[in-house]
Amino acid sequence: MEAFQFLKTKPMTAEPTLGRTMMLDKGLGLNAVDDLIATAGEDISFAKFGWGTTATMDRELILAKTHKYNAAGIMPYPGGTLLEIAAATGQYDEFLAEADALGFKGIEVSDGSTQIDHQKRQQLITQARDAGFFVISEVGKKNPKLDHELTTRERMTTIAADLAAGSNYVIIEAREAGKNIGIYDAQGQIVDDELAAITTHGIDHLIFEAPLKAQQVALILKFGPQVNLGNIASDEVTALATLRYGLRGDTVGRV
Amino acid sequence: MEAFQFLKTKPMTAEPTLGRTMMLDKGLGLNAVDDLIATAGEDISFAKFGWGTTATMDRELILAKTHKYNAAGIMPYPGGTLLEIAAATGQYDEFLAEADALGFKGIEVSDGSTQIDHQKRQQLITQARDAGFFVISEVGKKNPKLDHELTTRERMTTIAADLAAGSNYVIIEAREAGKNIGIYDAQGQIVDDELAAITTHGIDHLIFEAPLKAQQVALILKFGPQVNLGNIASDEVTALATLRYGLRGDTVGRV
Amino acid sequence: MEAFQFLKTKPMTAEPTLGRTMMLDKGLGLNAVDDLIATAGEDISFAKFGWGTTATMDRELILAKTHKYNAAGIMPYPGGTLLEIAAATGQYDEFLAEADALGFKGIEVSDGSTQIDHQKRQQLITQARDAGFFVISEVGKKNPKLDHELTTRERMTTIAADLAAGSNYVIIEAREAGKNIGIYDAQGQIVDDELAAITTHGIDHLIFEAPLKAQQVALILKFGPQVNLGNIASDEVTALATLRYGLRGDTVGRV
Repeated sequence: MEAFQFLKTKPMTAEPTLGRTMMLDKGLGLNAVDDLIATAGEDISFAKFGWGTTATMDRELILAKTHKYNAAGIMPYPGGTLLEIAAATGQYDEFLAEADALGFKGIEVSDGSTQIDHQKRQQLITQARDAGFFVISEVGKKNPKLDHELTTRERMTTIAADLAAGSNYVIIEAREAGKNIGIYDAQGQIVDDELAAITTHGIDHLIFEAPLKAQQVALILKFGPQVNLGNIASDEVTALATLRYGLRGDTVGRV
Repeated sequence: MEAFQFLKTKPMTAEPTLGRTMMLDKGLGLNAVDDLIATAGEDISFAKFGWGTTATMDRELILAKTHKYNAAGIMPYPGGTLLEIAAATGQYDEFLAEADALGFKGIEVSDGSTQIDHQKRQQLITQARDAGFFVISEVGKKNPKLDHELTTRERMTTIAADLAAGSNYVIIEAREAGKNIGIYDAQGQIVDDELAAITTHGIDHLIFEAPLKAQQVALILKFGPQVNLGNIASDEVTALATLRYGLRGDTVGRV
Repeated sequence: MEAFQFLKTKPMTAEPTLGRTMMLDKGLGLNAVDDLIATAGEDISFAKFGWGTTATMDRELILAKTHKYNAAGIMPYPGGTLLEIAAATGQYDEFLAEADALGFKGIEVSDGSTQIDHQKRQQLITQARDAGFFVISEVGKKNPKLDHELTTRERMTTIAADLAAGSNYVIIEAREAGKNIGIYDAQGQIVDDELAAITTHGIDHLIFEAPLKAQQVALILKFGPQVNLGNIASDEVTALATLRYGLRGDTVGRV
């Protein structure tokens, strides 16, 4: 039983009442993963092994981590950058096979660091789905200059096309820093027009990367605790849960 | 014995030579708590389980944590936000009983997220004291706009009233970020007039939340290593200890 | 074997292909050190026990940490501030003996927090070398005002003198924050002229403190993955390795 259970305004049946949380795992070790699962395992839906960090570690270690996450009901998946490198070097089949062998249940399809045309992108999504993976695609460029060249209409078109091709969720890119990219301006504040356009067809299949607390607060106050949020730092997962539950000053009495 | 003992200018009899340190525990797991106690246990007086984070975790986990802290001579207490929710929903008796059952030895009384009138505030303090808790009250609002509406005189009056009602310490609120609140301006720098007024009657019973290193340095250089500091991040506790001991560039030869 | 081995463009024979990484250990506990070595041990050359943090902990704990680092092929050394205090109080012999007894294999010689004349500095370097230590000296002042008074020529002269006296590497100081100091301006961006002058004789024996990701990216794009970088936060070591390997957006296809 949770502590101070009588003070919670939301029931603890996480989904679908509360939105999904995608945590950014930048290379946690096993002691830290144990701590994380024990303290916040029920508040995390996805563990993204950020960008190419997986490829710097031993296979046994990755296997041990994905095993722990899977056992806790948290879906682990490798960052999209790794997939992009595989796609660019013609090793996508090997990539999917290795991801499966390492215990990853999800795949992120992105073109944040490379150029991938629409047809290829849909093919990557479809192939991952057909191979049995849960697919999360990401819209946005990691280079702010390139990201600004993406029009709102292009983002909307890609979101629709990704979902049609089989993506389970589409992530709105904000990187680890959350500034000057996607729906955020250089100070990390939400650009309202951009957000309004992107959410025309609802938020159920979107995950907003929101690494900064002010972004998490703004999106929860706007859409409610059911909004899906991503790139949450591993030591901020519990803090985010308190925002969703109205257990932190910023949202007390407001969710 | 401590390493390099001969290089320390302060004796290691922490209190009362050194001020008290209140660390902000945002949801640490047991491995991290073990590390913390082994590396810095003697440098921490209080472990605040931030805002409502306690209520997102299993009772067994909270019990295991408070047991570790208590055994190490560190007093654990739940964040004031949790108390405010309890008070607002008429569950203060249950709150105190649950806090006791979970191994918390301290209680923080605040009105940072809700409105609590003076009489009610004193009653909360008195009831916690009568129930056997060490009581720490907090002055300040979590919303910067509301915090700015608090006059210096009101802060001084509340501090005095809290101590009269039985508070062991009064915390000057600065949140986790330490900017645009309490004694700090929007850049996190100390507002000298505000600080001077608040410390008219001494600093012995005050704990200054000082999450930023520059704030810790400024307060130590002004009041000496005996100043009480709070909202110290768990991975900055040792760094703060070195500031108090004159073992970091900012205070070498100055404390 | 590393995961996704086929996606790496660099061979995993770290040195000399990749530069050395000096990590800043601000007081990690044993669980965290175990995690760090398991996840990123091969990506770290040096573990600096920041400034005087070593002197706040029990000798047994420090011994356990240095043992773990040494066994993993990571050279531990105490921060220069501790040496400066020892030198200033006439306890340098004791300092070297204690460092040796505690399992440290390296010594950092600096004058960031105190005044040490050129002759004394060379003597400190030589004595540490003669005692069997690997010596890393540091150029720069921890106080920005004093640091700005150092001319480029003085920095160059000190680097050359240090190497002549026996330093294995010379660190360019940037502190933990990386702003308004050494080769960085107040925003943490590289001052090109300063960098060009300092690297006139190559970068092989220099370690650039580069705590901010943008600094790491800029230096890797300028000098290649073989540039030596320091003051890397313990939870950023893997992220830095991905930058060196071209496994993160900022350097994909560019290293």
